Amino acid sequence: MIPSDARARFRDGLVTPTSGWCDGYTQANLISVPRDLAWDFLLFAQRNPKPCPVLDVLDAGEVAGPLADGDIRTDVPRYRVWVDGELAAEPTDVRDVWRPDLVSFLIGCSFTFERALSQAGVPIRHVEQGVNVAMYRTSWRCRDAGAVTGPLVVSMRPVPAGLVETAAAVTARFPAVHGAPVHVGDPAELGIADLDAPDHGDPVRLEPGDVPVFWACGVTPQEAVMESRPPFAITHAPGHMLITDARDATYRV
Amino acid sequence: MIPSDARARFRDGLVTPTSGWCDGYTQANLISVPRDLAWDFLLFAQRNPKPCPVLDVLDAGEVAGPLADGDIRTDVPRYRVWVDGELAAEPTDVRDVWRPDLVSFLIGCSFTFERALSQAGVPIRHVEQGVNVAMYRTSWRCRDAGAVTGPLVVSMRPVPAGLVETAAAVTARFPAVHGAPVHVGDPAELGIADLDAPDHGDPVRLEPGDVPVFWACGVTPQEAVMESRPPFAITHAPGHMLITDARDATYRV
Repeated sequence: MIPSDARARFRDGLVTPTSGWCDGYTQANLISVPRDLAWDFLLFAQRNPKPCPVLDVLDAGEVAGPLADGDIRTDVPRYRVWVDGELAAEPTDVRDVWRPDLVSFLIGCSFTFERALSQAGVPIRHVEQGVNVAMYRTSWRCRDAGAVTGPLVVSMRPVPAGLVETAAAVTARFPAVHGAPVHVGDPAELGIADLDAPDHGDPVRLEPGDVPVFWACGVTPQEAVMESRPPFAITHAPGHMLITDARDATYRV
Repeated sequence: MIPSDARARFRDGLVTPTSGWCDGYTQANLISVPRDLAWDFLLFAQRNPKPCPVLDVLDAGEVAGPLADGDIRTDVPRYRVWVDGELAAEPTDVRDVWRPDLVSFLIGCSFTFERALSQAGVPIRHVEQGVNVAMYRTSWRCRDAGAVTGPLVVSMRPVPAGLVETAAAVTARFPAVHGAPVHVGDPAELGIADLDAPDHGDPVRLEPGDVPVFWACGVTPQEAVMESRPPFAITHAPGHMLITDARDATYRV
């Protein structure tokens, strides 16, 4: 399926995590904030490029851009609307709450490198298990920018021990979509108490011989929203991404 | 020589292009603009990552940061001061014209990958010839951001024909400091009429069998300043870079 078809299905109301969709195309995290917060936000992303690699910025009021020619207010399967840092709603269309002063950031997503992982023989457990990827808030802090601050969020993929090096090497070639893992092994090093209780997404079962491998995650800006409490923001719902028209290969070094 | 020593020498008045200085350390382009232009500027850089890879941003009034702990107003060998887009002065110290509302961008510089090129057996002709690298304004346009727009600027290095692939492969691994070449061969493709008349830096002689190889250049933001005519800006003088404390390897994928 090509991205414009997928976006049309989401626009028509289909709600699903997008991992595994539109093989070969780049998926993006979305976050829209009022113009007067946009500087701090872009600076936060720039200072934390591992979790917040900026693929594109749509200036105030823009709802389409070179990476996706539809309408970012309808083309994501599920959104989150934030008021004063609190989750206010999880609609499938945000046209009714849209504001002309909203600046939108498209942030790289690790779903982008899953095809390359798969082609290198690394199983994608959450796809096999038919669930969303598991994401965790960590005890590691991002570098602040003005009013914006927050913890690093990671996604976790179980990887057979013998393939961990392969997974690291393959993903290192995609620096614009989180790149190499930030951590391999003991979740406690990241301040994660229980792998079975992710903060976002679904628990993903480790098969025998699997090691948990952690990548920086584009949900990091959402946690920064929660912590920084801007008066208003819109994001995608975790795992429910904007599928762009850009090829994965565009972001491979 | 370590970067803090080099910066101290420049602070004390030494004026020289910095190519070849502080082997193994990252060099950066500097551009400081008033706070109310900073959004457009950061967006311009984000939309043109090949010529404008942002290594760090110092928020309004800051003169040091994690990449360089001295004072960016004194630690560059030569500056350019711009008023309404016109070159007003080329001092070696900008403390007397500094303003507390200036936001400073450190932009990646291709000098950073010259060590890796050299280690791969690629001669660095401008270093051999004891001159500044040759830089050219091209007919290729950058993607606009608000009021900021301009042409792509490139640096040119003569490379023996048999080593062009090596040079491309080595530099592709440094996406944060301009990455792979944007063009190899005929300068006319870039709208460059005469290789012997660079717009910035010095002419660099091609040895027999050399091919001109062009990389995106961090002087691009200066050309954007000239074209966009902000009321005030400070930049480094081309080739006279801020030598940072960051290791080249930090930016190698």
